[in-house]
Amino acid sequence: MNLQEIKKNKKVHLLFSGGKDSSLAAIILSKFFEVELITCTFRLLTNWRKAEEVAKKLKMSFKTMELPEIILEEASEKIIKDNFPANGIKLIHKKALERLAETSEFIADGVRRDDRVPVLSLAEIKQIEDKFNVHYLQPLMGYSRKTINLLVGKFFIVKEYKSEEEIGAEYEFELREFIKRKYGSEKIKKIFPKNHTHSIIIKLSPSFLPL
Amino acid sequence: MNLQEIKKNKKVHLLFSGGKDSSLAAIILSKFFEVELITCTFRLLTNWRKAEEVAKKLKMSFKTMELPEIILEEASEKIIKDNFPANGIKLIHKKALERLAETSEFIADGVRRDDRVPVLSLAEIKQIEDKFNVHYLQPLMGYSRKTINLLVGKFFIVKEYKSEEEIGAEYEFELREFIKRKYGSEKIKKIFPKNHTHSIIIKLSPSFLPL
Repeated sequence: MNLQEIKKNKKVHLLFSGGKDSSLAAIILSKFFEVELITCTFRLLTNWRKAEEVAKKLKMSFKTMELPEIILEEASEKIIKDNFPANGIKLIHKKALERLAETSEFIADGVRRDDRVPVLSLAEIKQIEDKFNVHYLQPLMGYSRKTINLLVGKFFIVKEYKSEEEIGAEYEFELREFIKRKYGSEKIKKIFPKNHTHSIIIKLSPSFLPL
Repeated sequence: MNLQEIKKNKKVHLLFSGGKDSSLAAIILSKFFEVELITCTFRLLTNWRKAEEVAKKLKMSFKTMELPEIILEEASEKIIKDNFPANGIKLIHKKALERLAETSEFIADGVRRDDRVPVLSLAEIKQIEDKFNVHYLQPLMGYSRKTINLLVGKFFIVKEYKSEEEIGAEYEFELREFIKRKYGSEKIKKIFPKNHTHSIIIKLSPSFLPL
């Protein structure tokens, strides 16, 4: 059995936005697993296409996973109540992981050591692993933002952009849309931090080699 | 610049025992870095040779790093006072990381998500990174013991053994020796948990491919 066969034996489903973190996570996991990139959508926007474009550049398998609008409603209510988006975004991420865990043996995300959102506690992580009998992998959890930026630079050309200026495949964008429709544009300005940036992979670095 | 050149640009020093965790960490890091395996010794025993044997099997560069006996003394005093070894072992690990950080840009260990010993807090990790201006990498931090055992099985044939039956390159063994010499064998039996097991890589799995 060679490495290709080993990898084929095990497929990991990685929650994927096309940003630098989840793209680096994909690279690391591809060493051990066949990686399938999963982008969530509530079918409110077609922002998942941003992630699909990156998946094509990475030459990795890509799927969308539809989540019911009730999750978006619940998250929005939390956000309106909190007056900040962190807990609502975490709620969506947790629901996405649980949905993924229903049909997968290995689930993963690109959460970093110093991420604030969407970070599950160790107890919540173990709960998902036990309840759904899955392996939940967080390949970037042992690295700082500084280390990740350095590694990302070896593999990708990245663009950083502000949420107000361009749309991305993160949960935030359908959340913004939903809140705008339900509560109006003013709410968005009040709740979401200004100058919040996202990243997207523009192309593979010239030194990138398939791994 | 190809991947080999990228890797040569960055050398990571990984604290290494020859056990399954630090060996898997070495494999993961070897994707991005030139890896140098570092085994600590107080020159009380030659147990570091166990790690050297595994390093040869992995075909990776290996060095010992001598630590002053005062650290062993301090750790032993803590252990005698606590009546359990966890904090003393953590103290040695922290000193080892700091010593390594003095002359390295990238330091790493094989600590897992659900490890109890020797786990530094996030504050301690950041303190080392800031004080010594290093990257501190923990490539296994995002994986459970269950996931790691599965990955280890893909790469290595592993032997598990009890501390009383065989010696390994972990800190524990020189600690035991030091405490035995200073406080007598009875202390060892009282302090160290019975049936505590370690692992060592016996050989590479038949499916192992250099990465």
